Amino acid sequence: MGVIFSRSTEYLESYDQTEDKISDEPNGMIIKNPNIASMEDDVLYHISLSSGTQDLKEMFGDIKFVCMGGTPKRMESFARFIQKELNIKLPTGTVLEDISRHSYRYSMFKVGPVLSISHGMGIPSVSIMLHEVIKLMYHAQCKDVTFFRIGTCGGIGLPSGSLVITEEVFDGMMRTYLELHVLGKTIQRPAILDPHLAHELKSVADEKLTKYKTVLGKTMCTYDFYEGQGRLDGAFCHFEEENKIEYLQHLEEQGIVNMEMESLAFAAMCNYAGIKGAVICVTLLNRLHGDQVNVARDILEEWQHRPQELVAEFIKKKLGLE
Amino acid sequence: MGVIFSRSTEYLESYDQTEDKISDEPNGMIIKNPNIASMEDDVLYHISLSSGTQDLKEMFGDIKFVCMGGTPKRMESFARFIQKELNIKLPTGTVLEDISRHSYRYSMFKVGPVLSISHGMGIPSVSIMLHEVIKLMYHAQCKDVTFFRIGTCGGIGLPSGSLVITEEVFDGMMRTYLELHVLGKTIQRPAILDPHLAHELKSVADEKLTKYKTVLGKTMCTYDFYEGQGRLDGAFCHFEEENKIEYLQHLEEQGIVNMEMESLAFAAMCNYAGIKGAVICVTLLNRLHGDQVNVARDILEEWQHRPQELVAEFIKKKLGLE
Repeated sequence: MGVIFSRSTEYLESYDQTEDKISDEPNGMIIKNPNIASMEDDVLYHISLSSGTQDLKEMFGDIKFVCMGGTPKRMESFARFIQKELNIKLPTGTVLEDISRHSYRYSMFKVGPVLSISHGMGIPSVSIMLHEVIKLMYHAQCKDVTFFRIGTCGGIGLPSGSLVITEEVFDGMMRTYLELHVLGKTIQRPAILDPHLAHELKSVADEKLTKYKTVLGKTMCTYDFYEGQGRLDGAFCHFEEENKIEYLQHLEEQGIVNMEMESLAFAAMCNYAGIKGAVICVTLLNRLHGDQVNVARDILEEWQHRPQELVAEFIKKKLGLE
Repeated sequence: MGVIFSRSTEYLESYDQTEDKISDEPNGMIIKNPNIASMEDDVLYHISLSSGTQDLKEMFGDIKFVCMGGTPKRMESFARFIQKELNIKLPTGTVLEDISRHSYRYSMFKVGPVLSISHGMGIPSVSIMLHEVIKLMYHAQCKDVTFFRIGTCGGIGLPSGSLVITEEVFDGMMRTYLELHVLGKTIQRPAILDPHLAHELKSVADEKLTKYKTVLGKTMCTYDFYEGQGRLDGAFCHFEEENKIEYLQHLEEQGIVNMEMESLAFAAMCNYAGIKGAVICVTLLNRLHGDQVNVARDILEEWQHRPQELVAEFIKKKLGLE
C-alpha cells in the first residue's frame, strides 16, 4: 500500500467564510473535488437525484437557504410553515412532494428559495446527506447559500424549551474538529461555524422571539446518545449518578450548554465547503435534572417548532419580507 | 471533575456467548445496567414505547428474532415477507402497523416471533435503536433472542448482488473494537460476532440459496460513506484514483470483502449484551470497478431482498417450518 499523505494526521485548511469568497465564483459554488466537474452523470443516490438525467440548475438554481433536521415529519412540517411565512403560493392543483421519496433514506421539500431536508440521526447520517446536498448546490450553480441545522438536544443548566444557537462545537473529548479515517489515515477537519451568522440569528431572536429563552453557547456533539452523553438509562451503564453529575457540571463550567449528535460534522463540512452554516437546537430537557425525554406530545411539538420560527424570521429578514 | 476510571482506556470484558448464559436467567435477558430494574417508567423515546404505560412482556414476550436494516420501507417489506414465509395469519380485519410510528425516528413491525426494525444510517443511529431494543427485550423478558442486521454494502472483488455474512468487523483503521467517549474517557468494546451463527447461516445459504454467491468474510465498517470508504465522488476528495485502488487492493489482501456503516456497533453491542448477532449484507457494486450505485431500481430491489431470503430460511429452519 502506497504512502498517501506525508503525515498521518493532517490539519486541512479552513475556508475564509466571506460571502465574496463564495459568490466570486462565476458559476456558483466552489467544490473541493476536481472529479465532479468531469462526471457525465453524478447519481446522488441517497437523495434520489442525478445530474445526468435531471436539469438540477433549472430545478434548484434559485435555492438560497438549506434547512435540515432529524426527522422527515419535522422537515415536511417546516416546508409547510415556511411556505406560509414566505407567502408562497403553489400553482392550482399542485401539492408539495417529497423530492427524495424514492431513496427511502431522506425526505426533501422545496419551497421557493428554501430546501427542507431530513438528515436522520448522528454524524454518519448527516454527513452522507451533506455530501450529496453540497454536490447538488454545485450542480445547480447556487450562489450564497446558507445552511441551517434545526434540531433537538439535551440542555445543561437551561430551562427545557430553550433555543441554543451554537457558537462552538466540541466532540465528546472536547476536541473542536471532526476526525475522519480516509484510506487508512486520520484526517482532522476544524468544526467552525460562522460567528456573524450566529450573532445575527441571536439578534433576530432577541427582537422577534421573546416568549422563550435563546442563548449563544458551546455545543457538545457525541456519537452515542446514552453512554456517550452520560445517561444512566441506556442498555449499558457502568458509572454512578454522582459521576454523571460531576461530569455535566464540569461541562457546564466549560461553557457547554447543550449536547446533540450532528453539529460536529455539520460545522466541519460547511466550513470545509466554504458554506455559512448555523446550528439552532431546542432543549428537550435539562440533563442536570434527568435523562429521559418524557414530555407530553403537544408540548414537544411546540418546542420543536421554535428553531423553525427563528430560521423563518431570519429568512424573512434576508428576503426583505418583514 | 472526578476520576471516573482508573485507566483512560478500558477493555471491557466480552460475554461468553452460549445460549445457556442467556437462558439461564430466570426472567429472560440479563442487562448490564443496574438502574433499569428500578425504573418505574422507562420511556424508550426513539421507538415510542414505554415500560410504565404498556405491558411490554405481554406485547413482545414471544420475540425470538430481531431483524434490522436501514430503511423503514425495507423493514416493512421484510415484515410482510416473513409473514408469508412463516404462514402467519393476522386476525380478520387487522393489518400490520408501524409500532414506532409516533417517534418518526424508526419503523418497527412485529410478525409472530419476529421483530423487524429500521435503524437508519451509521453507527450512532443503529446504536440508539439497539440501546432501546435491548431494553425492550429485557422489559419483555425475552429469552434466547437472535439479532440480524440485513443490509446493503459495497463489495470488494465480488460480483454485485453477492451476499456477505460477516465473520469479523474492522473499523476504518483496521481496529476490531467500537470506541466510545464516556464521561470524557475512551472506552473500547470488542466487536465480536457469533462464529457459530455465521457458519450456520452459510450452511443454510449453501443448501437453499444457490442462485447467487454467498461468502463468509471480513467487513470494514466506516463512519463516512464517501471519503471514509475511499470514494472519488463525494463533495470532497483530495486523493487520486490510484491511491484509492491501491487502498482497496490492500484491504482485499487483508481479506476485507465489503464495506458498510453499522456492523461495528451492532457487533460490539450484541457481544456486550450477550446476544447472538449476525450481519448479512448484499453488495450493490464492486468498489474495484466504481463508486456510484447506479443500478436499475428493480434489480436493486431484487438484490436487497436476498439478505431477507437467507434470514427467512434460517428462521424457518429454527422454527421447524421447512
